[in-house]
Amino acid sequence: MPVTYNDISLPDLDRTLTLATQAFVPYKNTSLRARRDFLHRVATGLEADRDALVRLAAGETHLGTDRLAGEVARTCWQLRSYADGALAGHALEARIDTALPDRKPAPRVDIRKMMVPLGPVAVFGSSNFPFAYSTAGGDTACALAAGCPVVVKAHPAHASTSERVAGIVLEAAEKSGMPAGVFAHVHGASFEIGKALVTHPFIKAVGFTGSTAGGKALFDWANLRPKPIPVFSEMGSINPVFLLPGKLEESAPTVAAQYTASITQGVGQFCTNPGLLIGIKSQGLDIFVEELSRAIAKVPSAPMLHPGIAKAYAEKRAAALKQAGVDTLATGIEGPEGLPTLASTTAARFLENPLLHQEVFGPYSLLVVCENPGEMLAVAQHIEGQLTSTLVATESEFHAHPGLVETIQQRCGRFIWNGVPTGVEVVPSMQHGGPYPATTDSRFTSVGEDGIKRFMRPLCFQQFPDHLLPEALQDANPLGIWRLVNGEWKR
Amino acid sequence: MPVTYNDISLPDLDRTLTLATQAFVPYKNTSLRARRDFLHRVATGLEADRDALVRLAAGETHLGTDRLAGEVARTCWQLRSYADGALAGHALEARIDTALPDRKPAPRVDIRKMMVPLGPVAVFGSSNFPFAYSTAGGDTACALAAGCPVVVKAHPAHASTSERVAGIVLEAAEKSGMPAGVFAHVHGASFEIGKALVTHPFIKAVGFTGSTAGGKALFDWANLRPKPIPVFSEMGSINPVFLLPGKLEESAPTVAAQYTASITQGVGQFCTNPGLLIGIKSQGLDIFVEELSRAIAKVPSAPMLHPGIAKAYAEKRAAALKQAGVDTLATGIEGPEGLPTLASTTAARFLENPLLHQEVFGPYSLLVVCENPGEMLAVAQHIEGQLTSTLVATESEFHAHPGLVETIQQRCGRFIWNGVPTGVEVVPSMQHGGPYPATTDSRFTSVGEDGIKRFMRPLCFQQFPDHLLPEALQDANPLGIWRLVNGEWKR
Repeated sequence: MPVTYNDISLPDLDRTLTLATQAFVPYKNTSLRARRDFLHRVATGLEADRDALVRLAAGETHLGTDRLAGEVARTCWQLRSYADGALAGHALEARIDTALPDRKPAPRVDIRKMMVPLGPVAVFGSSNFPFAYSTAGGDTACALAAGCPVVVKAHPAHASTSERVAGIVLEAAEKSGMPAGVFAHVHGASFEIGKALVTHPFIKAVGFTGSTAGGKALFDWANLRPKPIPVFSEMGSINPVFLLPGKLEESAPTVAAQYTASITQGVGQFCTNPGLLIGIKSQGLDIFVEELSRAIAKVPSAPMLHPGIAKAYAEKRAAALKQAGVDTLATGIEGPEGLPTLASTTAARFLENPLLHQEVFGPYSLLVVCENPGEMLAVAQHIEGQLTSTLVATESEFHAHPGLVETIQQRCGRFIWNGVPTGVEVVPSMQHGGPYPATTDSRFTSVGEDGIKRFMRPLCFQQFPDHLLPEALQDANPLGIWRLVNGEWKR
Repeated sequence: MPVTYNDISLPDLDRTLTLATQAFVPYKNTSLRARRDFLHRVATGLEADRDALVRLAAGETHLGTDRLAGEVARTCWQLRSYADGALAGHALEARIDTALPDRKPAPRVDIRKMMVPLGPVAVFGSSNFPFAYSTAGGDTACALAAGCPVVVKAHPAHASTSERVAGIVLEAAEKSGMPAGVFAHVHGASFEIGKALVTHPFIKAVGFTGSTAGGKALFDWANLRPKPIPVFSEMGSINPVFLLPGKLEESAPTVAAQYTASITQGVGQFCTNPGLLIGIKSQGLDIFVEELSRAIAKVPSAPMLHPGIAKAYAEKRAAALKQAGVDTLATGIEGPEGLPTLASTTAARFLENPLLHQEVFGPYSLLVVCENPGEMLAVAQHIEGQLTSTLVATESEFHAHPGLVETIQQRCGRFIWNGVPTGVEVVPSMQHGGPYPATTDSRFTSVGEDGIKRFMRPLCFQQFPDHLLPEALQDANPLGIWRLVNGEWKR
């Protein structure tokens, strides 16, 4: 059972944020190299404490120890790769346009630009990733790499794990000579603490991973401040998978095996879980559904992250299955929580019932059976913004359905070809974001080093002597970073 | 006198936006080269019609014909340079991470990412730049370069000029074979039309240049939509100038001449007009003030953009001069509109009176006299987000005041060394944006090709065969664009 911590008091929160603000200038003025070493030290600290962290998190979340150990490894990779990307200068987006003293009618002065950090960032971690999207997770790594102090609000579902991770970050900060206040960890199960954090004048940006209601509330509070601040809320997704008959005829068993794993992995508690499968009546689909149903039936139920999530899953699942025209195709091996479930409905029913478009967070997927490609296109057109969409098709099917391919792309941040949406690689080319309601701003990502840009803004220096410029913009490029110089990328 | 056009009706607006939405897919799928040629054709069209455009705009705005001819040239440069930057691929931000089939414990699939356009963009042009920040101005050029159809709401103060420019854009679109609906021009002097545009489900982003009240209203409407959309509102700035005594002692006459021109140029109707001069009591400041006052006194009054702006200037100027402890140091040659004015106050008065922090849009500047560097720092700390800030100092003064230098940087988008804030170069390194209330999102710019990014979002392609990828992401790089491939910039 999770330990319960008292909510921080508002005066203590104010003191915490004052310290974070005081840390801002000294922290942003540390070198890229020093910040890189700090983040690497956090990763090393997590690795050194891995077994204890995994035990603690397993007790709080019911996530398996293998999965949790993998998540610790991923968290360390995030910290290191974002730190290394920042050191290479990618996030600085340095641009240099040198003076043109002879330009007519007037000379052009020297102009240079680089990204600078916004200020203290509030991070709200997720329930389903106690490491990778929480205390020292992606948002924290991005904000610290950007040069922003971070205040994490612990997720109450794994508050002890969060405490222990916070201790590792604080120790790394101290050993790395980072200013006091560069990182803080607070508890607050009530909405009031979240609101106080987001509306506090010292907070300059917010990162959030969680529910639509929670993410939207933070977004609204931030926009209604006297001085609005940017909020990146990642609010989940049903991750539609479009299954075309030709590919299923070729390889239904393989696809069914992949999707059995993807739907039930981690008891379906991923924001990239494939909650919606869309197929067209065909022999291929019949084989696929038979294989998938048979395989799902063999997957045992399993405890979910915390009782609230298990209850929400049971309720949303029941509500979905009760809808007119929804049939249960397969359920897994019965247990008290997290029963794997495959349901189906027709395209006509799906199109008329908005409840069926909602995420059922857990090991649940709804198959929508279309009469023909036209119906599949109509379904695609009615789907809201998504983190991912997947197309399972042959190449000739890809070419035969340009309207479908176009429609899918417009509604997602990541488009997967003949794969599964679960498994989010941490690479610069990753996009973990998408049109609303997947996130509050489709122009940013929360995975991959480009996530750093959520917490930075450009600052332009006009007509400065070279030696008064920040090192990142000096002629000699003493940091050896990538820069766009008079239109050419150079290092 | 400006011609008055009827507001568009709501059904006609709906039809216009339906056409823009229908144009989106065909337009975004045109080649970078075709879009570049389209924008170049707009520029050529503006140049061919320059004299008539300038006459029309001069009649509507009272801006001088030389200034307007220069603005047409700048507008053409914007169109061409953004189009060329887009063709070079800068705005696509292509990232490629190739597969690692031998990675342990699991192989990594091929992942690639590029920016794609958001959809139809609503552009609200400014009163003070009938060309460069209006119908075919920066926001329109950025959105079209991004691949987004544009719907411009004409500024009522120069609606005829706007009509004529719109005709040139439409002709270029047709000649370039662009889809119908790629560009539309509507009239709407009422708030209702603006609100209908920003809250219409077919609009996916907004660009605005104008007043704080107007820009904030659009931002709020957009955030309260069922699906919020990004709004970049550039809402002006008082552009503080920090004058240190040593530099003034060295070169007060030169600085005074520069600032006389900068304060009164274009009857002070620039969002980068230096509305606030902050000095420290010293012999250098005395000489500077004497020179500046003498020079301002010789500048004639001049007609402002339209009667509403002249009235607002007269009222805000009078209100500012009436404040306790504010003295008028110099006024220009009397006339019915736009009287150049230099006023002064003490730091103590400035700090206690928020009205003195407000922009007086026109040829007005307030000198704040500080007793010492500590007071100057206090003034700097009380200044809100700005498009620009300027430091007039010697190098040894720069080194002697690190706290001031830091404070200035945190509150602006562009930091100028011994220059003037007016004159915004159109280069990739430009930042025309800044912390709130200068803009609604300090992470973006409205000048320079990076402004394109306001209207794009990343889309990731996972595990696609090379020949099914967009050309921008194919191995052979058939477009010859800049891409970050496995962490290295390549073309």
